[in-house]
Amino acid sequence: MRIAVLGTGMVGRALAERLDGLGHEVTVGTRDVATTLARAEPDAMGNPPFSSWAEAHPRVRVTPFAEAAAASEMIVNATSGDGSLSALTMAGEANLTGKILLDIANPLDFSAGLPPTLFVENTDSLGEQIQRTFPGAKVVKALNTMNAFLMVDPKQLANGDFSVFLSGDDAAAKAAVTNLLRSFGHTDVIDLGDISTGRGAEMILPLWLRLWNAVGTPKFSFKIVR
Amino acid sequence: MRIAVLGTGMVGRALAERLDGLGHEVTVGTRDVATTLARAEPDAMGNPPFSSWAEAHPRVRVTPFAEAAAASEMIVNATSGDGSLSALTMAGEANLTGKILLDIANPLDFSAGLPPTLFVENTDSLGEQIQRTFPGAKVVKALNTMNAFLMVDPKQLANGDFSVFLSGDDAAAKAAVTNLLRSFGHTDVIDLGDISTGRGAEMILPLWLRLWNAVGTPKFSFKIVR
Repeated sequence: MRIAVLGTGMVGRALAERLDGLGHEVTVGTRDVATTLARAEPDAMGNPPFSSWAEAHPRVRVTPFAEAAAASEMIVNATSGDGSLSALTMAGEANLTGKILLDIANPLDFSAGLPPTLFVENTDSLGEQIQRTFPGAKVVKALNTMNAFLMVDPKQLANGDFSVFLSGDDAAAKAAVTNLLRSFGHTDVIDLGDISTGRGAEMILPLWLRLWNAVGTPKFSFKIVR
Repeated sequence: MRIAVLGTGMVGRALAERLDGLGHEVTVGTRDVATTLARAEPDAMGNPPFSSWAEAHPRVRVTPFAEAAAASEMIVNATSGDGSLSALTMAGEANLTGKILLDIANPLDFSAGLPPTLFVENTDSLGEQIQRTFPGAKVVKALNTMNAFLMVDPKQLANGDFSVFLSGDDAAAKAAVTNLLRSFGHTDVIDLGDISTGRGAEMILPLWLRLWNAVGTPKFSFKIVR
């Protein structure tokens, strides 16, 4: 499939690499390609600059958001939550309409320091904001409840014996995302319901962040035992 | 131990029965004993009236909130979230001071229908509200993330192979609650940190409620796979 991954951080890189490895035709979208590739220093988290990642993944094209979205059948939103609506607006409503939009972002607000809070919660969610802003897109919320490396390679933890949640209004889009998740190695895909159920999946981020500290590693995940 | 269970709903009954069965001296606290015992009809959920439960558990005393708290070394808040501060105020600050207050309640707001939202979230929590209101109590948040029957008898699901979270400012109180949880059969007790970490544990309720619908049973729970 032709897939656009919007975002060049660790989540975008993990998704793009895995999708490329599975044989998909991947385009990474970014705000400004020249600026993105010009960064020569590791980021605040110590991750190497995107340019070295791009060099190591020559099959993956790097283009502006709009070009990536226009070229693809599925769009993955791997931008930071507070930049998602802006990035998707740059991608262009026409380039999203009729397409599956897999939303991985979390509405984290770091403006008051650590731990971050959520800038939308309880009666609304980032997934719903995106769906309302782009009504022609088929938004599916998933994967936002785990570390990037587990998103794309769940087998590296307990042989993948944990759960991933789906929320969305379009059944066919959810089925397509389910297939994609299974191709990554996920075995327990739980369909929560319509896009509003993504509120719940986004609202476990504060617990996720506390657990990271409590268990001492980001390589953990939620399993729904039943 | 002498333990007060505040609340006569399914959570309070499950806790009181289990604690009584384990040999603790249990007092159930309620707003008005005569009113509580006078109800002859099942509640809105179809549960039998409290009076029949009380008859079946003759060792468990039923008293007003204040008397239950005064008689006990540990207080369990099993009231509904929107009535918790009121119930604890009736229990009396002096009767809570210096004691462990195990808070199981969730800040659910049913005023706009189903599913409920949270009346406090993100930058505050019910556990913190209780701790601020009763600074002399040693508040420990726990057990609020699972069904009442699993709280007290985790072995009935996957032989107890799931997680329970702890939040609180007092290390000795958390150790005592941990011992209590282990006596129930819990094996994976995760200490999240101070009472503010209970925000995370309370904020997974929206996901819990959606999962109840998605998996078709309330007998499920979260396991932190790591």
